[in-house]
Amino acid sequence: MNFLIDGLQYSNWSETIFRQLRAGGVDAVHVTLVYHENFRETVARIEQWNRWFERWPDLIFQGFTAEDVQLARATGRTAIFFGAQNPSCIEDDIGLVEVLHRLGLRFMQLTYNNQSLLATGCYETEDTGLTRMGREVVAEMNRVGMVVDMSHSGEKSTLAALEHSARPIAVTHANPHDWHAARRNKSDAVIAALAQTGGMFGFSLYPHHLHKGSACELDDFCTMIARIAERHGTHFLGIGTDLCQDQPDSVVEWMRSGRWTKSVDFGEGSKDAPGFPPMPNWFRDNRDFGNLRAGLAKVGFGPDEIAALMGDNWARFFASSFGMLPSNSQAMERAAQ
Amino acid sequence: MNFLIDGLQYSNWSETIFRQLRAGGVDAVHVTLVYHENFRETVARIEQWNRWFERWPDLIFQGFTAEDVQLARATGRTAIFFGAQNPSCIEDDIGLVEVLHRLGLRFMQLTYNNQSLLATGCYETEDTGLTRMGREVVAEMNRVGMVVDMSHSGEKSTLAALEHSARPIAVTHANPHDWHAARRNKSDAVIAALAQTGGMFGFSLYPHHLHKGSACELDDFCTMIARIAERHGTHFLGIGTDLCQDQPDSVVEWMRSGRWTKSVDFGEGSKDAPGFPPMPNWFRDNRDFGNLRAGLAKVGFGPDEIAALMGDNWARFFASSFGMLPSNSQAMERAAQ
Repeated sequence: MNFLIDGLQYSNWSETIFRQLRAGGVDAVHVTLVYHENFRETVARIEQWNRWFERWPDLIFQGFTAEDVQLARATGRTAIFFGAQNPSCIEDDIGLVEVLHRLGLRFMQLTYNNQSLLATGCYETEDTGLTRMGREVVAEMNRVGMVVDMSHSGEKSTLAALEHSARPIAVTHANPHDWHAARRNKSDAVIAALAQTGGMFGFSLYPHHLHKGSACELDDFCTMIARIAERHGTHFLGIGTDLCQDQPDSVVEWMRSGRWTKSVDFGEGSKDAPGFPPMPNWFRDNRDFGNLRAGLAKVGFGPDEIAALMGDNWARFFASSFGMLPSNSQAMERAAQ
Repeated sequence: MNFLIDGLQYSNWSETIFRQLRAGGVDAVHVTLVYHENFRETVARIEQWNRWFERWPDLIFQGFTAEDVQLARATGRTAIFFGAQNPSCIEDDIGLVEVLHRLGLRFMQLTYNNQSLLATGCYETEDTGLTRMGREVVAEMNRVGMVVDMSHSGEKSTLAALEHSARPIAVTHANPHDWHAARRNKSDAVIAALAQTGGMFGFSLYPHHLHKGSACELDDFCTMIARIAERHGTHFLGIGTDLCQDQPDSVVEWMRSGRWTKSVDFGEGSKDAPGFPPMPNWFRDNRDFGNLRAGLAKVGFGPDEIAALMGDNWARFFASSFGMLPSNSQAMERAAQ
């Protein structure tokens, strides 16, 4: 297959970035639509994307199924798959899971740092695990084919989602906690459980998740990947750059503080460094995936492993994750064909 | 083909009615989702339908394309196509046209009796024709594949929509004004324009649209159809029963008065008869389409004409109406196949 797929980006989208996606040969990218936006605000984001799809049909189109990754490759475009980093988009209404899936939402985080109606974020001191509504929503996400993403969730909640979900789940963008002890990075127990359950773990290039931050070296990053691959296999590993290109710092404020505080929450930043940190110099934007490939080769990965890490694992995961679970009606449709 | 398709119903849906659809052999029905509901309320109606689709997958499923009519026939179920009788569902936001089309909305009336943001309803004294936003929304509906339905619009607005729309439009449920002079019934000029432009005209069985109302006789109704067919051809004719089965009278109040008046508007009713009128005794519910077939045969229609009138014309119209107009991206998709 040899697909190039990025497991998460939230850039300040523009023709420039769409052209960089093409220049970098990115076949598909999971883009964050929303953080704390409610349902109606989420729909407004979809409307914005629809205008971009209409305006640049030769560069991008909306992805709904795994086959759209192949279509992207065949037509020299990038398939855009939607996701939400917080369940604010479904408000308190489980029926919105299916509605948003129909509109193309293929990933939803159960939490973003804080407690949500569904589970607990990684910045809370107490972790409830899945709430009553959380268990119902995970089952509904399983039914319709929306991936449970626990990138910003607490440990207990993440393990609870891994256990409760009937379909494999993902951590789309994070790194191992024992490589860099950020709250957002994941324990080996979580990584092992993802490996064992058919889930996915996407390595992040967001500097706050990197050893030495923006100064992290490519070799250090790739050696870390090699260590995880040795320990747990390569079959569940991908990239989720968390690229937030060209975003003003007001956006990171929205990500961190939403409407839940009147103060400023610095999240992974600090009072002295409240904004977006600069990306490492070997991954500035979508044109630099080649550096990552080279780095992976240098630490000893073979061509098939690199293909798996750079996109084929995501492509396989998309294929098994995005469809509705078979129901009576679907069985009847198959019978009719 | 010999499909049985109803061009409009707004019943108080239940397992009983879904089983009557099957007993009557109805392959597809355009159902009204909403009247004056805003976008979020419209989504709540879709959520309700999703629960019905999940609960009765052996009886009904949501139709998105004309092929779903064939699937319905092949699997012994009824395909449900969504429509709105007023543009309240898109609020003042043209981007909601594509969003609602993605959610399956395949018909939208530009007005419901009153002036809307888009055009003028048949109960206003002054008819603006299409407004500025109306022209934009018709073009967007044309682009995405949502049928312009002028059943409740004024004459000038209807003729303006016929002229402005790049794709054929429909009057899904009405009768000729020169047969029964209800405000909702259509002039021969409108019917002629529909015939000439590839549009559709669905004959209504709602008693207020019938000569002699609930006492209208089958032969009178079918003779009227024969007269229209002689004058304009059968190619653009179908049925749109406007069946409002099992609805409480509170629903007809909502249809007529919405939130636009604090008084009661009796619409087609009157102070003495404010509720839903009884249906004619030869069409009580979905099991009675056979009576209509027999009535059409009795006034001289042949088997092919009856098939066209009872559903095949709608099926052909669905096939040419529900898809997005070809764009660059779709051309590229075709090239890739």
